[in-house]
Amino acid sequence: MSVIQGEQVPRPNNILFIMCDQLRWDYLSCYGHPRLHTPHIDGLAARGVRFTRAYVQSPVCGASRMSFYTGRYVQSHGASWNGFPLKVGELTLGDYLRPRGVTTALVGKTHMEPDREGMERLGIDPESIIGVRVAECGFDPYERDDGLHGIGPDGRYDPRVPRYNGWLNERGYAGDNPWHDWANAADGEGNRLASGWAMRNARKAARVREEDSETPYMTARAIDFMRAAGDTPWCLHLSYIKPHWPYIAPAPYHAMYGPDDVIPVVRAEEERADPHPVYREFMNHRVSRAFARDEVRNEVIPVYMGLIKQIDDQLGVLFGFMRERGLLDNTLIVFTSDHGDYLGDHWLGEKDLFHKPSVNIPLIVCDPSGAADAARGTVCDELVEAIDLVPTFLESVGADPADEAHRLEGRSLVPFLHGRAPETWRRYAISEYDYAMYPTAVALDVAPRDARLFMVADKRWKYVHAVGFRPMLFDMAEDPNELRDLGADPAYVAVRDTMEAALKQWSLRLSQRTTLSDERIRAMRGKVQRRGILIGVWDESDVPAEWWSAYLGETR
Amino acid sequence: MSVIQGEQVPRPNNILFIMCDQLRWDYLSCYGHPRLHTPHIDGLAARGVRFTRAYVQSPVCGASRMSFYTGRYVQSHGASWNGFPLKVGELTLGDYLRPRGVTTALVGKTHMEPDREGMERLGIDPESIIGVRVAECGFDPYERDDGLHGIGPDGRYDPRVPRYNGWLNERGYAGDNPWHDWANAADGEGNRLASGWAMRNARKAARVREEDSETPYMTARAIDFMRAAGDTPWCLHLSYIKPHWPYIAPAPYHAMYGPDDVIPVVRAEEERADPHPVYREFMNHRVSRAFARDEVRNEVIPVYMGLIKQIDDQLGVLFGFMRERGLLDNTLIVFTSDHGDYLGDHWLGEKDLFHKPSVNIPLIVCDPSGAADAARGTVCDELVEAIDLVPTFLESVGADPADEAHRLEGRSLVPFLHGRAPETWRRYAISEYDYAMYPTAVALDVAPRDARLFMVADKRWKYVHAVGFRPMLFDMAEDPNELRDLGADPAYVAVRDTMEAALKQWSLRLSQRTTLSDERIRAMRGKVQRRGILIGVWDESDVPAEWWSAYLGETR
Repeated sequence: MSVIQGEQVPRPNNILFIMCDQLRWDYLSCYGHPRLHTPHIDGLAARGVRFTRAYVQSPVCGASRMSFYTGRYVQSHGASWNGFPLKVGELTLGDYLRPRGVTTALVGKTHMEPDREGMERLGIDPESIIGVRVAECGFDPYERDDGLHGIGPDGRYDPRVPRYNGWLNERGYAGDNPWHDWANAADGEGNRLASGWAMRNARKAARVREEDSETPYMTARAIDFMRAAGDTPWCLHLSYIKPHWPYIAPAPYHAMYGPDDVIPVVRAEEERADPHPVYREFMNHRVSRAFARDEVRNEVIPVYMGLIKQIDDQLGVLFGFMRERGLLDNTLIVFTSDHGDYLGDHWLGEKDLFHKPSVNIPLIVCDPSGAADAARGTVCDELVEAIDLVPTFLESVGADPADEAHRLEGRSLVPFLHGRAPETWRRYAISEYDYAMYPTAVALDVAPRDARLFMVADKRWKYVHAVGFRPMLFDMAEDPNELRDLGADPAYVAVRDTMEAALKQWSLRLSQRTTLSDERIRAMRGKVQRRGILIGVWDESDVPAEWWSAYLGETR
Repeated sequence: MSVIQGEQVPRPNNILFIMCDQLRWDYLSCYGHPRLHTPHIDGLAARGVRFTRAYVQSPVCGASRMSFYTGRYVQSHGASWNGFPLKVGELTLGDYLRPRGVTTALVGKTHMEPDREGMERLGIDPESIIGVRVAECGFDPYERDDGLHGIGPDGRYDPRVPRYNGWLNERGYAGDNPWHDWANAADGEGNRLASGWAMRNARKAARVREEDSETPYMTARAIDFMRAAGDTPWCLHLSYIKPHWPYIAPAPYHAMYGPDDVIPVVRAEEERADPHPVYREFMNHRVSRAFARDEVRNEVIPVYMGLIKQIDDQLGVLFGFMRERGLLDNTLIVFTSDHGDYLGDHWLGEKDLFHKPSVNIPLIVCDPSGAADAARGTVCDELVEAIDLVPTFLESVGADPADEAHRLEGRSLVPFLHGRAPETWRRYAISEYDYAMYPTAVALDVAPRDARLFMVADKRWKYVHAVGFRPMLFDMAEDPNELRDLGADPAYVAVRDTMEAALKQWSLRLSQRTTLSDERIRAMRGKVQRRGILIGVWDESDVPAEWWSAYLGETR
């Protein structure tokens, strides 16, 4: 436990930033799931604060993560979809923590796509330490593994062959891509592979032994990191690929749940009656049509639950290790996800749109310091956003997030962690979506640059501004399942106007004046006169004599 | 004259991008000034196209220029005031032209402040070629000279001692800062200097010989550049500091005009009756109070006119040289300014706000190619913006500005230059102002990050959104002098709503997705499936067999 200089306020030494991928907010027992028991995560909530209105900045991996890591809205950092490079120059978590003495490392996924063109333009060697960090979103890649090692006729989705593949080979799992052939495939008919990419195989056991599957592997790598870390303060981003597809789990998790454990689907015929054009097209995506079938839901969701159960068990292992080492006493632990998964709700699959199963995430923060004792086990219903984590981390390590407010757009959650609500808090959460890559944009003949959606939510209303189309609107108080779109209903003009005004205020924010803090601007005021720039001066009597020092000499 | 590959359409080889500093749009005879005869600039207009509604993106040197050079709005590039560093990674004119074979060089001022912190973070050596270009806003600095070499008790305003100072010393002008002591000071009483920083000295002759003053010096440097350039296509930014203050001119220009040549001041008592709070505070600035006095206007404006006349004469010299060398036949020439000067209009001095004398600029573009013959001598009344120049230059050298539309926010003016109006054109011009550095922000107790103004103008209305205050509104049809602020008048609610809607649409624009063009996004669509990522697939029959190639092997 370190101590802020000159004060006796203990604060955490380390940060463990755990992220799952595609984990819905409501698939944990502490968030109310009736059949999926997640005691280790629930225990974290019991020791920390659980947030019930946590929003991602974009319900898709890449864009969401770039907001988590930069502390900035998608409209600010611009990396608005998977594989859209984050431009060189955007600061990330490591840029904030490292100068403050905190090693910032990665185990697992970031979905970062480097801006190679920008790096080349600026002469940044991708092999240099700076180049690696720019390319790795500011992390030191202890183990980078995005967990999607697909191979098709055009080659690998992810050009980086994971260390995990070699490790599997060493453990006796043969083949060029054991990630697929063992960890994400089952035994099929005859001697054929049953690929996890086909959802009909979801409830078959993956061929890999459980202890060699991805979640335990990454957990072990996190433990390796902690063993090696020594006394230097660290921030470890432990970023699991699961329960993201391919939906397939090793025994016994493949069979731990069945169709009877699946919570009821949230959808209504009324949603398909006269839907918003963008929503209609998303319902037509292959994955949405698949999840509209009960057969698919009943095969996939039990396994999705098993993958979450495995994560919870592995967190038990990890927390056990940390307890033994005394790390639970000096490590701030965050548990969250990068977005949810519709799983058939609202006639949709995947994520992308802004209903709760997609845009909301679990967020639990456990601060070990004494100051947090008052808030342990509490629940916070305020509107919080993914971009709040970077400032939270800064405050946790003793820095003042206000010093970075010219770049960071979120707010520290430390007040909630310490049981003292801030005087003011945001009244609206924002999320964005860029559907330029999707068939929806093609079907609607929307140019890539116009394929954009903006969500504005307060505690009651959820409003979606769709560039080029009418808006959507949901009343989460009267219609908590978000089944009735009021976006075209004349009775709600005033609500829509209010939400549009909030959106406008947000969109006019100062997001790019990132090279100067307010404090530095205040300090710069009036200084040009003392450096010889005299504006609007009639004669020598208008300004102090010293300002004239260099000007009132003799003619020579 | 070069030829676009495969077509017989001659296009310019070179670009001469002339900028004056603080030159009002209406202080040229071709723009209607009755007493200031500027035949060389008028001649350029007669051979080219003169734009009557040209707006700067911000009426202050630094922010305006960063928009000219990046082709992006201030809200997009973030360098919103003088000395606010342009963040590393923003592309500038040179980044666009150089890869297309065009040497891009600077003679004169840019007001660029490098993002030294960002350069250090990214390991960019400021002495390297890349580092120099990043620090010089993308230009090769043939001669960088911002023309403001003030020295006060805290040292130099501009740490770069200009080459011009050494050159003056060589020519026999003594002292540490001959820029001030000779070029910007007159002989005072006894043997004392009469500094040009005191406006009461404005009509005294500067001590320097006219041929050694700043405008001829920079013109000669431009000629040096052209002599040395050879056959490589070039873009030269010739960027004069004048008629910017210090308001002082060498003989004979100091006495070429008198108070009788000054056009009437544009102001009304009604403006001071119940002004907008921000406007009121700007009227209280020292420079505004000074220019409210006729004595000041009568001393300063004749010299301001003399400095413009000197520029016109020097352009005569430059165009003469270019004619002799055949360069007028293959060089696109732009003449413009970075913003205007109130000179007492509207009870204001300097620039900063959005009345015409401040936010409008002269803009003349002369394209030597045959395709432009149809438009020579024409006047264009469309809304054009500073950010239109980068795309104009790209199209002029044979590139397609659409290839850079993911970064550039302006539109090419080439259609107007060739006498064919584009099918659609912008309906609103935008300008912004960040007054965080000013006493106005202090007096109004506005935090630096909230000290922001946004102007939206169409051909009739000019609307100003002031964060935290009521808006301003002017009817330029009924009130061409902009003396009556309708921002609080209930009769104009509908107009204000329309302008706010335009502002919102602008503010939601896609400005930071700069690492991918629309074309590349279109080309990326659907590709992940061919790289082995199969989403929403039930079984093998759902997708082509080749997509399964890596997945349907045998268990081994």
